[in-house]
Amino acid sequence: MDQPKAAPKHDAPPSAASPAGTPGGSADASAGTPPKADTWGAIPTLGRFPQLDRVRYPHDMRNLSVEQLKALADELRAETIDTVSTTSGHLGASLGVVELTVALHAVFDTPDDRVIWDVGHQTYPHKILTGRRDRIRTLRQPGGLSGFTRRSESEYDPFGAAHSSTSISAGLGMAVAHHLRAEHDPSYRERNVIAVIGDGSISAGMAYEAMNNASHCGPGAERLIVILNDNEMSIAPPVGAMSSYLSRLMSSRKFLSLRDLAAKMAKRLPDRLERTAKKADEYARGIITGGTLFEELGFYYVGPVDGHDMTQLVQILRNLRDADDLGPVLLHVITEKGRGYTPAESAGDKYHAVAKFNVVTGEQKKGPAGPPSYTSVFSRELLRQAEADDRIVAITAAMPSGTGLDKFAKAFPDRFFDVGIAEQHAVTFAAGLATEGMRPFCAIYSTFLQRAYDQVMHDVVLQNLPVRFAIDRAGLVGADGATHAGAFDLNYLGCLPGITIMAPSDELELLNMTTTAAAFDEGPIALRYPRGGGFGLDLPAAGSVMEIGRGRIVREMTRQSGPERGGIAILSLGPRLAEALKAADMLAAQGLSPTVADARFAKPLDTALIEQLARNHAVLITIEEGAPGGFGAFVMMHLAKTGLLDRVRFRPMALPDRFIDHNTQTAQYHEAGLDAQAITNTALEALGVGISMTQPLLKTAIGPKS
Amino acid sequence: MDQPKAAPKHDAPPSAASPAGTPGGSADASAGTPPKADTWGAIPTLGRFPQLDRVRYPHDMRNLSVEQLKALADELRAETIDTVSTTSGHLGASLGVVELTVALHAVFDTPDDRVIWDVGHQTYPHKILTGRRDRIRTLRQPGGLSGFTRRSESEYDPFGAAHSSTSISAGLGMAVAHHLRAEHDPSYRERNVIAVIGDGSISAGMAYEAMNNASHCGPGAERLIVILNDNEMSIAPPVGAMSSYLSRLMSSRKFLSLRDLAAKMAKRLPDRLERTAKKADEYARGIITGGTLFEELGFYYVGPVDGHDMTQLVQILRNLRDADDLGPVLLHVITEKGRGYTPAESAGDKYHAVAKFNVVTGEQKKGPAGPPSYTSVFSRELLRQAEADDRIVAITAAMPSGTGLDKFAKAFPDRFFDVGIAEQHAVTFAAGLATEGMRPFCAIYSTFLQRAYDQVMHDVVLQNLPVRFAIDRAGLVGADGATHAGAFDLNYLGCLPGITIMAPSDELELLNMTTTAAAFDEGPIALRYPRGGGFGLDLPAAGSVMEIGRGRIVREMTRQSGPERGGIAILSLGPRLAEALKAADMLAAQGLSPTVADARFAKPLDTALIEQLARNHAVLITIEEGAPGGFGAFVMMHLAKTGLLDRVRFRPMALPDRFIDHNTQTAQYHEAGLDAQAITNTALEALGVGISMTQPLLKTAIGPKS
Repeated sequence: MDQPKAAPKHDAPPSAASPAGTPGGSADASAGTPPKADTWGAIPTLGRFPQLDRVRYPHDMRNLSVEQLKALADELRAETIDTVSTTSGHLGASLGVVELTVALHAVFDTPDDRVIWDVGHQTYPHKILTGRRDRIRTLRQPGGLSGFTRRSESEYDPFGAAHSSTSISAGLGMAVAHHLRAEHDPSYRERNVIAVIGDGSISAGMAYEAMNNASHCGPGAERLIVILNDNEMSIAPPVGAMSSYLSRLMSSRKFLSLRDLAAKMAKRLPDRLERTAKKADEYARGIITGGTLFEELGFYYVGPVDGHDMTQLVQILRNLRDADDLGPVLLHVITEKGRGYTPAESAGDKYHAVAKFNVVTGEQKKGPAGPPSYTSVFSRELLRQAEADDRIVAITAAMPSGTGLDKFAKAFPDRFFDVGIAEQHAVTFAAGLATEGMRPFCAIYSTFLQRAYDQVMHDVVLQNLPVRFAIDRAGLVGADGATHAGAFDLNYLGCLPGITIMAPSDELELLNMTTTAAAFDEGPIALRYPRGGGFGLDLPAAGSVMEIGRGRIVREMTRQSGPERGGIAILSLGPRLAEALKAADMLAAQGLSPTVADARFAKPLDTALIEQLARNHAVLITIEEGAPGGFGAFVMMHLAKTGLLDRVRFRPMALPDRFIDHNTQTAQYHEAGLDAQAITNTALEALGVGISMTQPLLKTAIGPKS
Repeated sequence: MDQPKAAPKHDAPPSAASPAGTPGGSADASAGTPPKADTWGAIPTLGRFPQLDRVRYPHDMRNLSVEQLKALADELRAETIDTVSTTSGHLGASLGVVELTVALHAVFDTPDDRVIWDVGHQTYPHKILTGRRDRIRTLRQPGGLSGFTRRSESEYDPFGAAHSSTSISAGLGMAVAHHLRAEHDPSYRERNVIAVIGDGSISAGMAYEAMNNASHCGPGAERLIVILNDNEMSIAPPVGAMSSYLSRLMSSRKFLSLRDLAAKMAKRLPDRLERTAKKADEYARGIITGGTLFEELGFYYVGPVDGHDMTQLVQILRNLRDADDLGPVLLHVITEKGRGYTPAESAGDKYHAVAKFNVVTGEQKKGPAGPPSYTSVFSRELLRQAEADDRIVAITAAMPSGTGLDKFAKAFPDRFFDVGIAEQHAVTFAAGLATEGMRPFCAIYSTFLQRAYDQVMHDVVLQNLPVRFAIDRAGLVGADGATHAGAFDLNYLGCLPGITIMAPSDELELLNMTTTAAAFDEGPIALRYPRGGGFGLDLPAAGSVMEIGRGRIVREMTRQSGPERGGIAILSLGPRLAEALKAADMLAAQGLSPTVADARFAKPLDTALIEQLARNHAVLITIEEGAPGGFGAFVMMHLAKTGLLDRVRFRPMALPDRFIDHNTQTAQYHEAGLDAQAITNTALEALGVGISMTQPLLKTAIGPKS
């Protein structure tokens, strides 16, 4: 197990990977115009962090007074703002939990007590307090800290995340494990497990499954404390009954006062008269909480409490820590996203994830205006289609802006459905719409569609329902790293019988594929397209419907490059086509001039095109932005079936069989071995020229195998 | 769209596929000893079905009196029992909903009103009433009716199912679609959508996601009626807070009387004085329902009601049908699984799914005692491992008996966790246990693990946590058909970096793989094994730990079969090995004697073995019980990387790219082209002998390509 059991947590050395430098690395990093304090409230002047500079690990906070903790929180907030202004990242969420982060580490015995941050994008303050301040400005940078929690990064990150709603399940597992291990190892006794989860994340089915199980899964679960971080602002405005319920719960009650709390907790505190205390407790409970949904689910509900009131937080957390028999607890904390930084408080959605920005003005630094993103091309064409066809409806799982459906929502509010973080429901809801003749577009990132895999298979594909899957963020995605990579959809969808899968090589292709999907009623159809900008192509006003399962030759092999059936063919699926064309240029410089084709469809295959390429070339390379077992494997199956696999040197190129860390997309694809140079090398290797091979097999240079 | 819009539903002809025979096909089918009525209560004598014989489609029920409907229900129950006694199937669930089925079709205008049965295994009575009585004894038989609902089978099955908890999502989609379509097509106006879901199914996250969305997704949703069929008995005893909550809800209230109901519904009925009625409604509401969890989630809760009281059911359903502004409704119905058939009522779990049985005694007909199942071999070895190692814990998602973990549960109740129908939580809960040094076995059928795909990827594999996945029912599964086939796990798991995947070729291998998984702490490991019995091998008392990533040669090519590097190699993953050996015998009879190897591991590959096979043989066949893109694709990737793909005629055999209907497993694999004859054909085809090829490529018979 890679979780150290008796780790020297209180005096842990800084990671070996951290650059030399003072622990309080902010002093020099904040060079530049110091912001005026009054621009964003009572934030200390940058560079003057008397409290923060004394805290390298949570251990250093445990003797601080509440007043000192408050000062520490203010400094931590300033450091967080300054950091994200230089790194980009999830600012609002982090600012909302500054006090909570301080209070948790001050009260609980981390890392032995486990604090699990759901999603993990709100953990910049947590990272600063847990030995990573000296590297905090490497956040989301190549080779730097992850933008999420990560077990390999720190023992204070007991569970890595990035997708939402996993924390209660994981925490429950830990709490139960502590109970079981305590039988042999007393150090596991009475360890607390805290799962901090947002109001958006708790709407996911997975969180409900975990809550449903918590009070019934046996001893240990009573040490689980779920902190519901209710900021009434997920990435998108909150939707659904749970979110309304939380609003009602909050608005119908004032914050718990310390006196309320004392009454509520009385029974559980040691050395009190059981009977009297219990009465007080019931009284307080009745007044303050009533029967809540969480109590019906077996949780001991406490709240709501002001998540920015340090005095309150510390007191409540101490009580919960010291209480014995509450069962699993849900502490309902109200926070403000972006708290303490005016631009983030007021901008909401735009400050969920920010670019680098000017601390004083809040202005985000935009790079030079690039070509329109794939997302926006999809969004625009879908809108155009929907204007002409009112059977088109659109579904998102809490990502209206990320998927570009926000424009659809504005234009066709009745035909737009944001179901919240609920991918499973999103897909089957779309299936239901499809059974009644609607034309649903279900727009979900590749990585999040994994959450609805069974629904795609069982509810859509098996029934051959015409649901359109708009799969954004396919392939490698840059700074969000491996957790968000859309590496597997060609595998997990490609194996499903009867689904159609398209991948555009550029934004014009995406335009046409969106048109094609809208018109396609014969069954399920997916279009997978990458994060980021296209190539800046001129786009026509309207897309055109493509022939299903038909690819195209983009560049024909020149005759002089080899014998009639010699030469190289590169069959690309998706935007690697540009690299394939670059590779073709590189090979042309060596006297080899390959055929380059755009497969367009991962399924159904353009078998005529594939057979033609295999027959007329000595080498056939496929390339895709996905893991092994996808498009290249389907091509291989067809080649094997027709016997053509025996004639052509087949070289499928796919992502390597490992996770690729956060970096620029270009660097990631280079690391993955999927750029022009790698294609060139593969071609030369297959021909047996230029590059030494592990197996000295091919003596004949160019020419067919058989 | 394949849902007919204005179908001739009331006089639809019987399906063309139905055999000639009387609509009331029971009379002759029930030949044999007629059961004594008093054995199982007030069931009419078989063969005398005066009411049922008059009902071919729900239309025929709409003018019946409640008394007639009661008689119809009794006959329907008898017909259902008699049917399942000859076909095998899910008896208990069907018997529990006989009255509900009759009432629904009598009150609602099916198929225009949509009735969606969650899971769909309780629909035998529904099938009998909806034009399928003449084929009901083909249930689950090859070529016969499916054991679940299926869109292609009947317009009365608006949504196919088999996996649980999808009905609310699908129903919500339909209800919203009706609203949208009604703008142009008035026939869509006021259509009702009824989703019938069990108390077990409603514990799944997906059902919660749908409920959370229902009251917020816009117009149309108010025509959704969720019927919670609460029988307090899922396949396994119910677990979790929701199930406790439902018990409390039920025990704290008496059944609604008609008077209560009248009061409750008063406001919503037409032509009443609004003010008075509203008062009455509030009064009744306060008394009868209080604030329930479902009301917090935005549903109009009605219940509990006795699901076997026809008078009551018909009245309530009529009221709900005629009410206008309730919003989405949840009707809480209490039923008894197995109702009306004593053996099924008392036996619980054992009557969830039954073999053929004797109607009089209830005794299930067991076939001749076959060899122990894979499930039982896994179960026994896990138990043995757990006795020696108390870090071993076991998790199931509502399948203790199906996965064989029931024995573990009995022996180690503290280390056994049935989390309910909650696969997502099950996997991440296991991940949490693994972080703390436990050795979790997460036992989930291949098809249901699809529900937790993202959790496997994001929570387990990405963090390299040593969760053991015991994947039962891998490959084709027989009578449960395509919905339950474990066809895709090699694809969706195989693409994940760093996971280890084992597939035993027989039960001895499974024994050793279970031992291996228990000992393996380096990361995630999966063992996938089939439904059904092994080969009856003698098993040692204890398994032994295998070397990770090492396959084995089972049968060596004999020299005389070809030149040194000639001949055929068959590399099998999983239990197809037996067919590979049979194929080897068939080929030997033709003077070809292949090498046969057992890969054991889909990941990591035994690259040395693969290279050896590729070097020393002219043809390399892989075979697996999974969809294209799995094991064979991984082998291909390695062959391509080493250049060996250019030397050997590679023939990967996998499931065809289509769904395989229910049948015997043997017949399914024959249909899939994965039996000994198919392997033999593939080998001969690759060698260019015996069988004509689509491409006349290979003139040279036996020998290496290059």
